Amino acid sequence: MRQRIITGAVGIPVILLCLFTVRPLMLLLVVALTAGALFELARMYAPKRPLAFLWLPACGAVGFFVTYLLQVPDWQGIVLAFYLTVLLALGVFAYPHLPIGDLGFLLLMLIYGAWTLMHALVLYDAPHGSWLLLMAFLTVWFSDSGAYFVGRAFGRHKLAAQLSPNKTVEGAVGGIVLAVLALLIANVFIKALPGPAATVLFAVAIAVVGILGDLFESLLKRTFGVKDSGNILPGHGGILDRFDSLMLVLPVVSYLLPFLATL
Amino acid sequence: MRQRIITGAVGIPVILLCLFTVRPLMLLLVVALTAGALFELARMYAPKRPLAFLWLPACGAVGFFVTYLLQVPDWQGIVLAFYLTVLLALGVFAYPHLPIGDLGFLLLMLIYGAWTLMHALVLYDAPHGSWLLLMAFLTVWFSDSGAYFVGRAFGRHKLAAQLSPNKTVEGAVGGIVLAVLALLIANVFIKALPGPAATVLFAVAIAVVGILGDLFESLLKRTFGVKDSGNILPGHGGILDRFDSLMLVLPVVSYLLPFLATL
Repeated sequence: MRQRIITGAVGIPVILLCLFTVRPLMLLLVVALTAGALFELARMYAPKRPLAFLWLPACGAVGFFVTYLLQVPDWQGIVLAFYLTVLLALGVFAYPHLPIGDLGFLLLMLIYGAWTLMHALVLYDAPHGSWLLLMAFLTVWFSDSGAYFVGRAFGRHKLAAQLSPNKTVEGAVGGIVLAVLALLIANVFIKALPGPAATVLFAVAIAVVGILGDLFESLLKRTFGVKDSGNILPGHGGILDRFDSLMLVLPVVSYLLPFLATL
Repeated sequence: MRQRIITGAVGIPVILLCLFTVRPLMLLLVVALTAGALFELARMYAPKRPLAFLWLPACGAVGFFVTYLLQVPDWQGIVLAFYLTVLLALGVFAYPHLPIGDLGFLLLMLIYGAWTLMHALVLYDAPHGSWLLLMAFLTVWFSDSGAYFVGRAFGRHKLAAQLSPNKTVEGAVGGIVLAVLALLIANVFIKALPGPAATVLFAVAIAVVGILGDLFESLLKRTFGVKDSGNILPGHGGILDRFDSLMLVLPVVSYLLPFLATL
């Protein structure tokens, strides 16, 4: 617990610095998180030869960064077309040593481990981007904490008993409600979101998708038989352990944004 | 062989009709091909319960069509964000009955079976789109036929011995050369591509990626132990059997196009 607090005390100012000073710092943060997430996924999937499953998604991630920063139109499609071609070539010429399941996981690694995190940059570059990211971050945090305390007090029905025995439906609902309240209050001061309807939708979407992201990381850990995805953040585990909820939230919020602006 | 010729005699005019008359016909063709490709993939992957692996990619494909036709900006990203969220939710709530390999294959199905074919529509809507598609089609066909005859005459070195024992390196090179020559001649009459450099690059890219697409379909068939992916096209097999090369070619050509225009 002491480690956890120290890491948080260092980590939160670092994140605020990246969010609210200059863009290169934010870029550095996203690159670091992506590298960490991909490395942890590769090490979970193939503990004995993680590098074999790291280089292709890493190249794909670099492709996303380079094309995005160069403002290439259709940057996502270009990288995906190139990635798919190399992926299938790899499957063909490594046959039968790279079965279809490995190819599928390499695709999932790109989308789940790199494409999701790229949307931190997409959101950052949107109007009021830094504030939106901070609000997404706060919402995940409030929903998480709310779920913990409400679940402890009133939890009766398991949410996903086999994956995460401590999570309850009551906790999840409590977390969502707390996230909505917190964000409504925050929005009075921050004014990044247009109106109360948009704020409520924003909070609910983030809380629900965040819980899902958290549960999916539990699925990964159970599937590959590890307790934590890594240990780079003392007391918090790895990048995936700490940012699992946010990762799935980032693209959803990015694409919800133009719609929210109409509310 | 007789069946094959009859199917071709019906199929080629149908494709030309879809390419060169009205857009709804083209749309219908792409929808039919996507539906066929996804169904064949699902049936290969899970012969006993193909529908379980069909509904999610089918919903994703409908998402692509609807958002593309409504001209939603970022249509690909929106569908991918939504698909990823539902995919992970499915993995979480079906745990442990839908292992990570299944989730990976469901993602691969969307990208390989629907996203690639969607680019037939993207190309169609580009300037000179119908002609570009026809040229892509012809290039694949010339490269294929060239590889067959050159390979029979001079083939010594196997290209991918374990996947497709009849394909040789000599055949592949012959196919690429023939595709370049055919396209250079066609371009004199059609004028859809800007210059000879662009035409050569177009032809080489299509031929190489086409061979790869063909080999990947062999990988799928060997992995799942089937001879043909389907039998909807008498003498040709299934949609995947006939359009395997073109599928991988479509996104590559789409994204190469703005670059080709600068040559």
